[in-house]
Amino acid sequence: MKIDRFLQLFVVKEKKFYPLYIEQAANIEAAAKLLVELLQEQDPEKQKALYKDIKEYEHSGDMITAKLYEELNKTFVTPFDREDINLLSGRMDTFLDFIHDAAKRMLMYRPKSVNQLLIAMGQCIVEDARILKDIMNGLEYIQKKPQEINEKCVRIKQIEHDVDDLYEQFMSDVFANEKDAIELVKLKNIGQVLEDATDRAKDVGDIVRGIIIKFA
Amino acid sequence: MKIDRFLQLFVVKEKKFYPLYIEQAANIEAAAKLLVELLQEQDPEKQKALYKDIKEYEHSGDMITAKLYEELNKTFVTPFDREDINLLSGRMDTFLDFIHDAAKRMLMYRPKSVNQLLIAMGQCIVEDARILKDIMNGLEYIQKKPQEINEKCVRIKQIEHDVDDLYEQFMSDVFANEKDAIELVKLKNIGQVLEDATDRAKDVGDIVRGIIIKFA
Amino acid sequence: MKIDRFLQLFVVKEKKFYPLYIEQAANIEAAAKLLVELLQEQDPEKQKALYKDIKEYEHSGDMITAKLYEELNKTFVTPFDREDINLLSGRMDTFLDFIHDAAKRMLMYRPKSVNQLLIAMGQCIVEDARILKDIMNGLEYIQKKPQEINEKCVRIKQIEHDVDDLYEQFMSDVFANEKDAIELVKLKNIGQVLEDATDRAKDVGDIVRGIIIKFA
Repeated sequence: MKIDRFLQLFVVKEKKFYPLYIEQAANIEAAAKLLVELLQEQDPEKQKALYKDIKEYEHSGDMITAKLYEELNKTFVTPFDREDINLLSGRMDTFLDFIHDAAKRMLMYRPKSVNQLLIAMGQCIVEDARILKDIMNGLEYIQKKPQEINEKCVRIKQIEHDVDDLYEQFMSDVFANEKDAIELVKLKNIGQVLEDATDRAKDVGDIVRGIIIKFA
Repeated sequence: MKIDRFLQLFVVKEKKFYPLYIEQAANIEAAAKLLVELLQEQDPEKQKALYKDIKEYEHSGDMITAKLYEELNKTFVTPFDREDINLLSGRMDTFLDFIHDAAKRMLMYRPKSVNQLLIAMGQCIVEDARILKDIMNGLEYIQKKPQEINEKCVRIKQIEHDVDDLYEQFMSDVFANEKDAIELVKLKNIGQVLEDATDRAKDVGDIVRGIIIKFA
Repeated sequence: MKIDRFLQLFVVKEKKFYPLYIEQAANIEAAAKLLVELLQEQDPEKQKALYKDIKEYEHSGDMITAKLYEELNKTFVTPFDREDINLLSGRMDTFLDFIHDAAKRMLMYRPKSVNQLLIAMGQCIVEDARILKDIMNGLEYIQKKPQEINEKCVRIKQIEHDVDDLYEQFMSDVFANEKDAIELVKLKNIGQVLEDATDRAKDVGDIVRGIIIKFA
């Protein structure tokens, strides 16, 4: 009976990680939604307010990442490889950083106009965030339904390809039509970071797929 | 005798990975060669046709990467660390993505002229691809001839340095002579992705060197 | 007694890594200091001389990285995971490469003026290098004082955030005030690589934190 309790201690401990990943995913989704609003916002004051909120989500994200690291340092038995727990939280944080970076560029550059294709790219980031939330909700059961989670990761890969195409179309447009070199540089760099953000979402998916492989 | 057969099953299984890596390397080499043609092509229609072919190689690359991932999920005994098998295919895919990205930029930007130094950088990417093909052909014997394979990885590192120098020269030229800011941005970004591609080839080499280290 | 000697052989062997990391950190710090000088230098001849010296440090860095790799191949018992030894030297080398790259861009682009904020970013890189030197000096005792080393890694994370803010301010300035598109592109790209360099310093810290976690 004492041993049972002892084992339970471990079980309780290792379960600490899941809610933190779920919290982080919710954080990312909230920031991604505000980014799409920001891409469509013209009013400088409202832009500033949206950016401030995104910055707060990014800060919360840092806190969650730090907490995951601390928990990891206190926990002997982890639900999957220690390194993967660390990598997963690191990559999620990086995805959030890129969302924040995209918002920051909107404020730094203040482009004269925002193309519809950029907004579509932002919406893909929101979809990535939604799928990541689903994945994190299922993480606890990854051994029981690896196929289901793998499919979600494949979907994120697909989104990354779609965004590549959007970005290609956007850049062709900009280089064909924008005659003001400074505006062109602004748009190019905002498009670039949106495209990069979806690569970072794929990085998170790759870590999850790596975890699935180890359980195979 | 039954046990022999059982063991053979494993041996057969683990051998599935090598041909896929070799196939991927051939794929990369084909795309790299077309990229050099594209860099030298002036005719828009021919450029489009070359890009279309490169895009198909990139798509085949995704298929091979997916197949490697599936094989990994079905295989219990792998010739080297499961994670390294996964990393190696991921990095090869990324190298191919960068070749595709360089081609895409040519189509998106349509620069007025292409410098000889850019073509030289493209040729270095072809050399990287050739060396990677050699490495993948030798991968099965990596424990028997680690030194030989390591030397090939070192050669890829050297190419990366050479391309750094080419890029440096190219950029100095462009910033000194190109007075049209939009053309300058185009050339800078095409040069950048060619240079980045050789970094990605080095990343593949680094994974191989990591595998050698584990066998040491 | 024979066994003692045998064990001592291992102890001696594994200790070979620490001085190489310390040497690399000193190398990085020297290059970082010259970079700050270069950012403040107007005279083209002196700029060239400073760049030449930075290039030499970068070359020494490659030598040290190669030596670490060789040692690793000869050593059976390592103070921490073989992969981490390899990753740590790789990431330190990458940080140094980015310092070198920043210097190279100064020479390639020759911007008409260098903003005070860029110099402040350079000074943050020097601080990163100093902290890394401290970390490498303590690496041998990482199991005895993980908290102390972890705090240094957290400090590097903090610097990365500070540099993000500096970069944000710098870019807002440049996009608001620089009317020459080519000068704008130059300054943007120099600022970018300085900001990226502090990300690479954080990457080194992340590897160290990963090592701490494995000992926890």
